[in-house]
Amino acid sequence: MAGIQSFFEYVDRKDNQDRFVEHLSQWVAVKSVSASREDRGKCFEMMNLVRDEMVKLGIDVELCDNPDKYQTFEDSEEPVPLPPIILGKLGGDLNKKTICVYGHLDVQPAEITDGWDTEPFVLQEIDGKLYGRGSTDDKGPVLCWLEMIHSFQTLKMDLPVNLKFCFEGMEESGSEGLETLIELRRDTFFKDVDYVCISDNYWLGKKTPCLTYGLRGCLYFHAEIKCAKNDLHSGIYGGQVHEGMVDLVHLWSKLIDQKHHCLVPGFYDDVEPLGDGETDIYDRIDFDVNDFKKDIKVNRLIGEVEGDNIKSKRNILMNRWRYPTLSLHGIHGAYDGDRSKTVIPGTITGHFSCRIVPNQNVEDIEKKVMDYCYQVHRESGSPNKLTMRNDTGGIWWKGDYEDNNFKAGANAMFKVFGKQPDLTREGGSIPVTLALQQATGKSVMLLPVGACDDGAHSQNEKFNRLNFINGVRYFS
Amino acid sequence: MAGIQSFFEYVDRKDNQDRFVEHLSQWVAVKSVSASREDRGKCFEMMNLVRDEMVKLGIDVELCDNPDKYQTFEDSEEPVPLPPIILGKLGGDLNKKTICVYGHLDVQPAEITDGWDTEPFVLQEIDGKLYGRGSTDDKGPVLCWLEMIHSFQTLKMDLPVNLKFCFEGMEESGSEGLETLIELRRDTFFKDVDYVCISDNYWLGKKTPCLTYGLRGCLYFHAEIKCAKNDLHSGIYGGQVHEGMVDLVHLWSKLIDQKHHCLVPGFYDDVEPLGDGETDIYDRIDFDVNDFKKDIKVNRLIGEVEGDNIKSKRNILMNRWRYPTLSLHGIHGAYDGDRSKTVIPGTITGHFSCRIVPNQNVEDIEKKVMDYCYQVHRESGSPNKLTMRNDTGGIWWKGDYEDNNFKAGANAMFKVFGKQPDLTREGGSIPVTLALQQATGKSVMLLPVGACDDGAHSQNEKFNRLNFINGVRYFS
Repeated sequence: MAGIQSFFEYVDRKDNQDRFVEHLSQWVAVKSVSASREDRGKCFEMMNLVRDEMVKLGIDVELCDNPDKYQTFEDSEEPVPLPPIILGKLGGDLNKKTICVYGHLDVQPAEITDGWDTEPFVLQEIDGKLYGRGSTDDKGPVLCWLEMIHSFQTLKMDLPVNLKFCFEGMEESGSEGLETLIELRRDTFFKDVDYVCISDNYWLGKKTPCLTYGLRGCLYFHAEIKCAKNDLHSGIYGGQVHEGMVDLVHLWSKLIDQKHHCLVPGFYDDVEPLGDGETDIYDRIDFDVNDFKKDIKVNRLIGEVEGDNIKSKRNILMNRWRYPTLSLHGIHGAYDGDRSKTVIPGTITGHFSCRIVPNQNVEDIEKKVMDYCYQVHRESGSPNKLTMRNDTGGIWWKGDYEDNNFKAGANAMFKVFGKQPDLTREGGSIPVTLALQQATGKSVMLLPVGACDDGAHSQNEKFNRLNFINGVRYFS
Repeated sequence: MAGIQSFFEYVDRKDNQDRFVEHLSQWVAVKSVSASREDRGKCFEMMNLVRDEMVKLGIDVELCDNPDKYQTFEDSEEPVPLPPIILGKLGGDLNKKTICVYGHLDVQPAEITDGWDTEPFVLQEIDGKLYGRGSTDDKGPVLCWLEMIHSFQTLKMDLPVNLKFCFEGMEESGSEGLETLIELRRDTFFKDVDYVCISDNYWLGKKTPCLTYGLRGCLYFHAEIKCAKNDLHSGIYGGQVHEGMVDLVHLWSKLIDQKHHCLVPGFYDDVEPLGDGETDIYDRIDFDVNDFKKDIKVNRLIGEVEGDNIKSKRNILMNRWRYPTLSLHGIHGAYDGDRSKTVIPGTITGHFSCRIVPNQNVEDIEKKVMDYCYQVHRESGSPNKLTMRNDTGGIWWKGDYEDNNFKAGANAMFKVFGKQPDLTREGGSIPVTLALQQATGKSVMLLPVGACDDGAHSQNEKFNRLNFINGVRYFS
């Protein structure tokens, strides 16, 4: 039986890599946008495609009906079926540990008119970067697991662990049905899982691999303000009608100040105090503030201290991982074009969300935000009706990075990249993390495959080829 | 030759009215949205259609190439041809006065998903109301002129005036090319015009006809804020990046307060002071505040005084006609859907506009608004770049409602409706008014045909059938 060295030789070969890329381009071509009613068929197609490929690899696959069955979009009451969830199993050796791998096969919306340089659903390689929607979030990482198995099989190598798979098609739209299924299968499929591994996040930089032991939670809010039955012409009605846009702007201006400090009373009360020596953790991490700024082209970051790279790095990482924040995403119902439309929107909905951290309580923050919004609006004296809605995107999570799961992850990273991974947290939420931890009672580790500049959810999302030159592996 | 009584009998007949409605439905079916690149062909089709119909009526028509020739949309540099402008002439009797009539044949954008109850480009009659985009703005009114001529001709009646027509296809998109053409034909086509009549506005209510002698101007502003190269995931970047949305919200909150008072320093400096007895003008006008509120379903209007209908009416009419205001229209580049997208938009453009009044100066207000925006943004300490753009939608205008043009208009209204029209102003701008006044040096009168609740620029735009029962004409 070939050793791990043969495996590396095999997957580093250009002809094999080209095959992996071609495989990814087939997956990217399936426009499995879970947020769009029109693309729901493509979500089903994607799940079926991967199911078939897994069967070919000898994986024992069950395509589970989504337990939530249907979903309704806001534009119509017509229900839309939810895509199935894949549960798979490979190997049942009682002497081996069983790792459960999670991934998702749906993607964020993307149109070339959003500002992409290439067609989002046509994978295109430029200088070793593979551009396409879903390339890094999360089709690329899922494909890595399947191609790893295929390579082991080709080389007739034995897998050192049993594998279980849980792949869903609704991650970008609230993972509908997933937690119910995990709960339903807690005592069957998930019962004998020893460790959980999730590949759905990113390295902090581009050079040092990472293992991730913490996530912020996400609470999403919708503030609907109705000022008139229909949209109104600002020439006729301007100056007479209390505009919903004015209400929303003042509400938002009282939610967050210009230094991005959240103004909701008590918002920061339960944030874990900075521990003794905690700042050392951040100081050790490989993170270049200037490189980070250059990638996303921002002039100055929040917490940046001019001329003090150490302090800047520390503040920026803490703002990303261990402090909560509030973001304003946009407005539904207002004019969104790029011309000069003179409309007073009749009903608008302002979308914003909070990232929450240990030890903030979901219900407490939701109540504080909602109550405060109603209070601010009431005190504004506006005659318009405000209606708040909210949905929970996910609770924060913090794991133990000293357990065996993380040790094995660190060993693997060292074997591939020749250096110890940084132990990081993520600013975003991955709700399934907590669900899988609770269902299995076991350690969950996030093992990111993509780089910091992959642009998940953005225009020009990409996934890197991994180069192996002079004994070192690095991203293109 | 038949007298005016025969004319009324003819146009009040149901079979003839049905024919007029059928005619309007043909015009509404042509989706001549001037703001959309895709519909530009339909704008040309509409101009050609009306040209052909005018020729059939014996009008001497010239389809003038648009002097500005091409337009570029922001999404591409590919130029799009501008629709032609119709100039027409009927009658050249030197013993008659010559009236020049203006109208436009393009319409605002409309999709049934905007919240229409019926297909916007399929005219549908419900309870005597004719729903469809352009029905009242401005296809219906233009069609009235042509059907009037056709009725006179059918009845072999002689028109008491010579008529000239100026119909354009770009009114909803800045009337591109129109002012140039008017200027070019100032000493030829427009030379012998005695009076100008424009039918492109609305009655103040639903029962009393109006003649309009004043308009507010419109200055449109675009505030572009760039915080990052691309859209960013708020999970990864929230709390690190100064969000453009936060900058825009704070900028807007400092432009207009919650009482809808514009905070730009000096904005109100040149507003004409309230004249002696000026409030009497407003008190005499037939305007029901509660009816008005019910139509658009607003809870309370700006300036409304509880329990004092006279004061409320006065304040509301003054806010609409003689005071300036500022409206927030929406944001380009932010999330505009109705779900929970966790995006930090990379570049956003906030759209807002000011309605200006006598004696505010266009350049002065533009400069005050632009300077103030830059100052507020600079003082906010944001690292993001603000770029202001603006376009002039039109200057304010005030005519003399005691001249012969208005006397003739009042006589005509009295003949049709049996009562004197109210003399009103409009809150919106109609830039061609000033252009035609300047080119001809003659009196311009606005003669509205539509009712206050027609919903120009809104969902469910409609035009009323005119009923004649028991000697009284009224809207359905």
